[in-house]
Amino acid sequence: MPQMVRVHNMFVSSDGYAAGEGQSIERPFGHADPMVLGGWAFATASWPNRTDGTGSRGLDDYLVRDYHRNIGAEIMGRNKFSPQRGPWADQEWKGWWGDEPPFHTPVFVMTHHERPSFALSDTTFHFVNSDPASVLSLALEAADGKDVRLGGGADTVRQFLDAGLIDTLHIAVSPVELGAGSRLWNSPDDLLDRYHRDIVPSPSGVVHHLFWRD
Amino acid sequence: MPQMVRVHNMFVSSDGYAAGEGQSIERPFGHADPMVLGGWAFATASWPNRTDGTGSRGLDDYLVRDYHRNIGAEIMGRNKFSPQRGPWADQEWKGWWGDEPPFHTPVFVMTHHERPSFALSDTTFHFVNSDPASVLSLALEAADGKDVRLGGGADTVRQFLDAGLIDTLHIAVSPVELGAGSRLWNSPDDLLDRYHRDIVPSPSGVVHHLFWRD
Repeated sequence: MPQMVRVHNMFVSSDGYAAGEGQSIERPFGHADPMVLGGWAFATASWPNRTDGTGSRGLDDYLVRDYHRNIGAEIMGRNKFSPQRGPWADQEWKGWWGDEPPFHTPVFVMTHHERPSFALSDTTFHFVNSDPASVLSLALEAADGKDVRLGGGADTVRQFLDAGLIDTLHIAVSPVELGAGSRLWNSPDDLLDRYHRDIVPSPSGVVHHLFWRD
Repeated sequence: MPQMVRVHNMFVSSDGYAAGEGQSIERPFGHADPMVLGGWAFATASWPNRTDGTGSRGLDDYLVRDYHRNIGAEIMGRNKFSPQRGPWADQEWKGWWGDEPPFHTPVFVMTHHERPSFALSDTTFHFVNSDPASVLSLALEAADGKDVRLGGGADTVRQFLDAGLIDTLHIAVSPVELGAGSRLWNSPDDLLDRYHRDIVPSPSGVVHHLFWRD
């Protein structure tokens, strides 16, 4: 099986925003309410941060749990890793995820401001100042035959789309308008020149858009 | 995580039959056309018997590929293993699946007619004359902490449902009436006294029914 580059569980508003304006440590999604964008996912049994053994096991859960299947590395943008912008004020910030990040693989953070790699539990963060194709090349090698997850945010996904580097995407469109923020697309139809798509409305109210190419 | 008992990719007609009448070595589904019941699954990239690297990666593929996730053993009925009925005419029959069966785990075949275990590649078939709870106990031990897949056919699934032993089911209802054969249910609503359910129509025309319990 060839290695694939996959986007999973990406939350987007009905007007195409993956996060609101004004991201901060208190508000990782800016003015957007994470429960409104991601409540459908947080309610599933397979949500990576869930520890209580409960949660739904219907359609949304099938999609959420594919997140970990056959993944050997993740690539994320600097804005997913941290609310800070520009040069690192300090290197104490180690991500939003506490001592047990939900990745369990090498993670490559794309940033103009490099800093030393570090490990938290079984996740190792690397900081790379390079273009999408070069970062992907590092991630594919680290993934050791498994697939690479592209973790977002929207700017990073758009860069990889523009470079033609993504094989499959799962984008979950929530019935809320944000009006401003970090935009993935003008319309889900933007990708139809390059991808097949299934549109799958979920009983939870979110609409899953599943893209793949030949 | 507690071990679960899961049914995956079970093909059922709109009138509730998982196979037609007159199963034989030439017609494993009896008078039913396998392409009509299972064509949606055979078209996906993750169909277990696919080797050509093509296939769709939309909704149907997400459901099909959950088949292998965290499975440590399978239980199947004798009628899924073989078209023969009654005492084994001979023990040359080793299943429908050739030298590389798609299970890759221990498989427990429920039958009134025991025969010696045998291995094909990384699948080992055991033949057990016992009730569902006892067979499940063997399979759970063999699965070594992973889940147990209940492979069908309809009679076997009904026995396990009656005994309250199934945690999740994925039943794919195709838009065809069979009129007779091996029946899973009178209506998909039969299980709503015991299970939550999502009904998910696929662009392929099949309707996925996903059941789970608390």
